[in-house]
Amino acid sequence: MSPLPVDGALLERRLDELYTIGAEPDGGAFRPLYGTAWAAAGDRVERWLKDAGLKTRRDAVGNLWGRAEGTEQGKSIVTGSHIDTVRRGGRLDGALGIVAGLAAVASLLKEKGTPRRPLEVVAICEEEGSRFATNFWGSRAIVGDIDTVDDEIQQAMRERGLDPGRVATAARDDLDTFVELHIEQGAVLETSGTPLAVVSAIVGTAHLGVVVTGRPDHAGTTPMELRHDALAGAAAMIHAIESLARSLGRPAVATVGRLRVEPDQINVVPGRVVFTVDLRHTDLKARQALEDRIRSLCTTIAGERTLGIEIRTLQHRPPVAMHPSVRALLSQAALDCGVEAPEMVSGAGHDAQILAAKCRVGMLFVPSIGGRSHCPEEATSPRHVELGTRVLARALELLAY
Amino acid sequence: MSPLPVDGALLERRLDELYTIGAEPDGGAFRPLYGTAWAAAGDRVERWLKDAGLKTRRDAVGNLWGRAEGTEQGKSIVTGSHIDTVRRGGRLDGALGIVAGLAAVASLLKEKGTPRRPLEVVAICEEEGSRFATNFWGSRAIVGDIDTVDDEIQQAMRERGLDPGRVATAARDDLDTFVELHIEQGAVLETSGTPLAVVSAIVGTAHLGVVVTGRPDHAGTTPMELRHDALAGAAAMIHAIESLARSLGRPAVATVGRLRVEPDQINVVPGRVVFTVDLRHTDLKARQALEDRIRSLCTTIAGERTLGIEIRTLQHRPPVAMHPSVRALLSQAALDCGVEAPEMVSGAGHDAQILAAKCRVGMLFVPSIGGRSHCPEEATSPRHVELGTRVLARALELLAY
Repeated sequence: MSPLPVDGALLERRLDELYTIGAEPDGGAFRPLYGTAWAAAGDRVERWLKDAGLKTRRDAVGNLWGRAEGTEQGKSIVTGSHIDTVRRGGRLDGALGIVAGLAAVASLLKEKGTPRRPLEVVAICEEEGSRFATNFWGSRAIVGDIDTVDDEIQQAMRERGLDPGRVATAARDDLDTFVELHIEQGAVLETSGTPLAVVSAIVGTAHLGVVVTGRPDHAGTTPMELRHDALAGAAAMIHAIESLARSLGRPAVATVGRLRVEPDQINVVPGRVVFTVDLRHTDLKARQALEDRIRSLCTTIAGERTLGIEIRTLQHRPPVAMHPSVRALLSQAALDCGVEAPEMVSGAGHDAQILAAKCRVGMLFVPSIGGRSHCPEEATSPRHVELGTRVLARALELLAY
Repeated sequence: MSPLPVDGALLERRLDELYTIGAEPDGGAFRPLYGTAWAAAGDRVERWLKDAGLKTRRDAVGNLWGRAEGTEQGKSIVTGSHIDTVRRGGRLDGALGIVAGLAAVASLLKEKGTPRRPLEVVAICEEEGSRFATNFWGSRAIVGDIDTVDDEIQQAMRERGLDPGRVATAARDDLDTFVELHIEQGAVLETSGTPLAVVSAIVGTAHLGVVVTGRPDHAGTTPMELRHDALAGAAAMIHAIESLARSLGRPAVATVGRLRVEPDQINVVPGRVVFTVDLRHTDLKARQALEDRIRSLCTTIAGERTLGIEIRTLQHRPPVAMHPSVRALLSQAALDCGVEAPEMVSGAGHDAQILAAKCRVGMLFVPSIGGRSHCPEEATSPRHVELGTRVLARALELLAY
């Protein structure tokens, strides 16, 4: 077996190109769903797909597909990733899976000709939830899991020329396998000196929304002991949540990422605070136990301070295992390219966990330098980018030829 | 000594009348400086001043004065308060001092005739800083402490027929004493069952701006022990600030009122948090010590967590003592009306702290129900309103007759 050629310089150039689209003044890129930068990035990728000889189309939610027909009919082999980014997002999260997937498919078409099975590259419209409360918007449309579209999203879709009434038509039941190359977004691979990993499972994530209600009072005239300070209460809760997750250790994590204060005036004791908790664990029972303890801690603190508290579940996703046969195939592809790729758990969510409902899924991870992600410092060594792309191409070859 | 008659029903009616001017849809009134509601409220008060036989005039910044000449020449005895309100402001903050001051003066003129000294009622144009960054605009003009007028304010003045070039002419050097009746805006009097207090001093306020810099990381892939979470750090600081102020006890207060998280995403470890600290104490040295300890606590916490920290002073006003002779006179006036009025410190700022630069100042506080202020729930029992007015009238009698 001779390894497929992959143009590492082209990969880097295209990653650079995408990173300029939605570039923010202080570094990082921001391509929120249906925004101008999002649309421009899609247009750029569509041109690349066409250049590779793929037939392109956009589905009802704006997922961009490039397809090479196979000599046989049947379900498709798909690779790709998402094109949206978080605010001040990095150069690789999502972008790598699209650029590398396209490079792999282009190389296969050039070197191996028409595939046996249909081979597709997808730029998924949204995964990050960075504009609306819509994580996995694109992949949820693909598996037919969108029942209603919020007014706000409907308007954004219409402004982008998409018809919200047609969302159901984005569903696919003709996908066989989805494989995605992604950066790890953590420091496990770098720390252990591992250049590539096969993902065994994606952790389950729960998102909680916490509302703490106190009483807005004059900051000058209300003695400390008469206050019902919602922010001081929330601070105690955040402190407790962090301590709990720290004491449990890996793989438990808990993060308070968003917080809003009302009335948010320098001289008024905060009357209301709203914050979110993101909590994850590979074991569903352990995560539930973590969530229960967080709920109980916050409720106790609120009680001690005579504050009101309301805790809602915003999202509740179970851990998802990657398909055993795809895991085995990815390990084989790595070996074929001369590397051993150990298995690891993904702490981040990915479209594969949604697509798993309708097809076989698998993922490859390459190291993130310093474990950094969702920030301008997000980076991966070009040799790891090239290695990952090479293994992805080999896996697609095993699947589609 | 026979107490001066005060018409309690008229006081309530006039407070009701003023409260309708600038009424907001969801409750509360808003009369920002130089706005329509502000002007309408001034016109109403001017009519009342004239009805009481006072000669009215507006100075260059729009302070409204009503004057009764004395049998002797010399510096004036003045009472009054501010006519502007915060957004969704209450029925009494400022309004009480104007309505009660006028009622007291009217009663004196009617019952005791022409005063020995000139006696004035003032509706100060602005104290709250609720439209522009102009706290104490009216009283600063009176003490000649306005050097420049921002373009935005100049325009608002011209729209109201005032000439910004004449601001310096509002300065007065012929004031002897300023006494003001105000609501406490806190719960100290209510909690202790005290119907009236003499203000001993107005606390000094320092405002700090704190920037905590951590590292934004992926909430799923970054183990707890590898994080530099700016919000978790800020929460520890807020907790420490609150504990410190609590342990010091009255009159020390410290409030974190504003807080902003970046990037404020549910699945990103916060990389930067900006918050404010409002801290007050009657003793400048004690406040400085409190500020030093807060700075040191925050810096220590940042160090322990390998977070960056920057602490800036946004505002720094020293405490202002009320004049000893006026305090004694107000206590006497209260005793003359049959109540003992203990002294207390004002946690809120008031025009008196500015006017103290040019004349003797003193203040009376009546209880705020539930300690509420700067909100539609702001209220004081009518019998306390009447008592405060009666004592104010007696104090003015002692001063001007």
